[in-house]
Amino acid sequence: MSQSSLMERAQVAEDTATLEDLATPCLILDADRMDRNIARLRARLERLGVSLRPHLKTAKSVDVARRVMTSSAGPATVSTLQEAAQFVAAGVRDIIYAVGIAPAKLPQVLALRAEGADLAVVLDSVEQAQAVAAASRQAGTRIPALIEIDCDGHRSGVLPTDSQRLIAIGLALQAGAELRGVITHAGGSYTARGPEALQQCAEAERRSVVDAASILREAGLPCPVVSVGSTPTAHSATDLSGVTEVRAGVFVFFDLVMAGVGICQIDDIAVSVLATVIGHQRDKGWILVDAGWMALSQDRGTSKQAVNQGYGLVCDVTGRPYGDLVVADANQEHGIITVRSGSGAALPDLAIGDRVRILPNHACATGAQHRAYQVVRGRSDRVEAEWPRFGGWQ
Amino acid sequence: MSQSSLMERAQVAEDTATLEDLATPCLILDADRMDRNIARLRARLERLGVSLRPHLKTAKSVDVARRVMTSSAGPATVSTLQEAAQFVAAGVRDIIYAVGIAPAKLPQVLALRAEGADLAVVLDSVEQAQAVAAASRQAGTRIPALIEIDCDGHRSGVLPTDSQRLIAIGLALQAGAELRGVITHAGGSYTARGPEALQQCAEAERRSVVDAASILREAGLPCPVVSVGSTPTAHSATDLSGVTEVRAGVFVFFDLVMAGVGICQIDDIAVSVLATVIGHQRDKGWILVDAGWMALSQDRGTSKQAVNQGYGLVCDVTGRPYGDLVVADANQEHGIITVRSGSGAALPDLAIGDRVRILPNHACATGAQHRAYQVVRGRSDRVEAEWPRFGGWQ
Repeated sequence: MSQSSLMERAQVAEDTATLEDLATPCLILDADRMDRNIARLRARLERLGVSLRPHLKTAKSVDVARRVMTSSAGPATVSTLQEAAQFVAAGVRDIIYAVGIAPAKLPQVLALRAEGADLAVVLDSVEQAQAVAAASRQAGTRIPALIEIDCDGHRSGVLPTDSQRLIAIGLALQAGAELRGVITHAGGSYTARGPEALQQCAEAERRSVVDAASILREAGLPCPVVSVGSTPTAHSATDLSGVTEVRAGVFVFFDLVMAGVGICQIDDIAVSVLATVIGHQRDKGWILVDAGWMALSQDRGTSKQAVNQGYGLVCDVTGRPYGDLVVADANQEHGIITVRSGSGAALPDLAIGDRVRILPNHACATGAQHRAYQVVRGRSDRVEAEWPRFGGWQ
Repeated sequence: MSQSSLMERAQVAEDTATLEDLATPCLILDADRMDRNIARLRARLERLGVSLRPHLKTAKSVDVARRVMTSSAGPATVSTLQEAAQFVAAGVRDIIYAVGIAPAKLPQVLALRAEGADLAVVLDSVEQAQAVAAASRQAGTRIPALIEIDCDGHRSGVLPTDSQRLIAIGLALQAGAELRGVITHAGGSYTARGPEALQQCAEAERRSVVDAASILREAGLPCPVVSVGSTPTAHSATDLSGVTEVRAGVFVFFDLVMAGVGICQIDDIAVSVLATVIGHQRDKGWILVDAGWMALSQDRGTSKQAVNQGYGLVCDVTGRPYGDLVVADANQEHGIITVRSGSGAALPDLAIGDRVRILPNHACATGAQHRAYQVVRGRSDRVEAEWPRFGGWQ
């Protein structure tokens, strides 16, 4: 898709729209912060000599994708075939569907490839490799597949030391499909603390795929792509020798979990939920707002970090944190704001109808609760645009 | 909306569609269980002599609403103005928007009333009452409002003993708007355990609004509606004297939290997430499926109950629980299934591509992650229909 046709997708809001005009709750995106976050990781990866394959599952938006991808054709990473279909329709041509492939999804993969997209799948078993090879043969095409490597035991993937399984998968793929490379995700890095621990995660992530690639190559199998990725490791790696690309998603927006991990500041968080005060329980020091877990998500990712942010950190309408003011509890459409337990901070004097912005624990989860971004820049209250988001799987 | 035009909304799936044909993850609704759950609460409330005003925030579906409401015109309860607008468009005429009103939302309330709906709002402060009265006067109509009563300290509402505030709100409303009655929600009942504790919650809920109604009436103010509601108390109350209506939502589907509270059986749970096996970590006893927290929600409502169900309880494709098999962890699009910690149950022998159904902790939260229900009945694998769901606020 050309830049201009992508531009047409951005439904520009009326010139007069401000944050006060928006119906609440809704999702606010500070495009200045987003641009800064994108520039920061790009510069980092350029220094490290690897390319960026952004994970678009965080944004699920063509408008954001256009800003974060290296080119309008990609490369990109997705977590659902719905994302793949949406981005293929928007002109993206180089995509990895980075969730272990179910054989029943291969017809849709083939259909998207038939539209001209180089859509690759991920797998970690001989059974899947055989299914991909069989589907490839039947369709008269070679579906590219990456072998998922388990770098830290947190989820799926082949152990990088399991040469027998790696080679068996590679051989099964080559019987009809295409072995594109190896891929891993250091999900364990989300619980690492401190720059040293994060660098160790990044190095373990790098080493896992580099080792797996060596095993494949030594067995005479191809392994052109060596893909790593997670926002904490992308921002912590000091050496990516042997790696060809980095995937990361949440770096575009950041969130309270990432601030707790230590790889961004609170002021870098680009998304927030705009909410309206709808009540008080003054005896208890509670302010009620119209953003509950439906608007904020139920992600409590900071609950085990040093600073528990409840369901989100509360800022004034310009995005400035009040300090120690959090959404301590949430029902479906009610949020209960209060001063963080143990803090001496004062409860701000907010009246019925006043507005606040709530920074999320997890940008992917909070974003998923909304159908659009209301785009602002910095401290300005002007809403520049509304960018649609999509969801679902099919 | 007439029964026949509502019928047209139910997009009947092709005769051949079965659970095996569905793309995963998706949301399954067992309409037999739903019908049974609806009949059970209806019979109970008939015996108690009160009417049912179902809370449609759980289902967010016109097709489900049609089956749970007493008539095609209502009564009904909603948690967002988007729900109100959708159900007004579908012909519902008697609605309470049961989240404290923000003054900026009154124009939309007036617009929906102008379409012929008797849409009432809820509030708990003089400021809100003044705003509703002012908007009413300006529009030349009387917006009906219910005063929210705090029966258990869990969220918003006026204490039923605070006669001064109750009367002040009532008087402020009567200066232009309409005092419709009092309303409360025993949210605290979700953490009650045992029939006796639940009956005490129900009685406290009943007494709070009956007492508040007496205060208003003794002050010469009207109070025609006396509204209580929560699924646990609706199923536990033994006397509802003085109450005119019961609101409840999750009773339609039930969920693992409600089973843990003790007001339904696992076999009553009518919604589940269909998922496909995409991998194994055999050394760890893990089965990976393509339903992560995006499909299941992050609700961990059973984590503090006697039986922690993780992110959901795993059943075979017909809906029969394996026993002690849970989604122990979840990423965005990955679920990790394993035998419950401490159980001696065996891991079932599931292959890549096999399908399971996962019962949710919280039907409202899991439902919200999906755009449609795939409707089945009992153990049949035939998909009878696809019923759309909606989300969002505006």
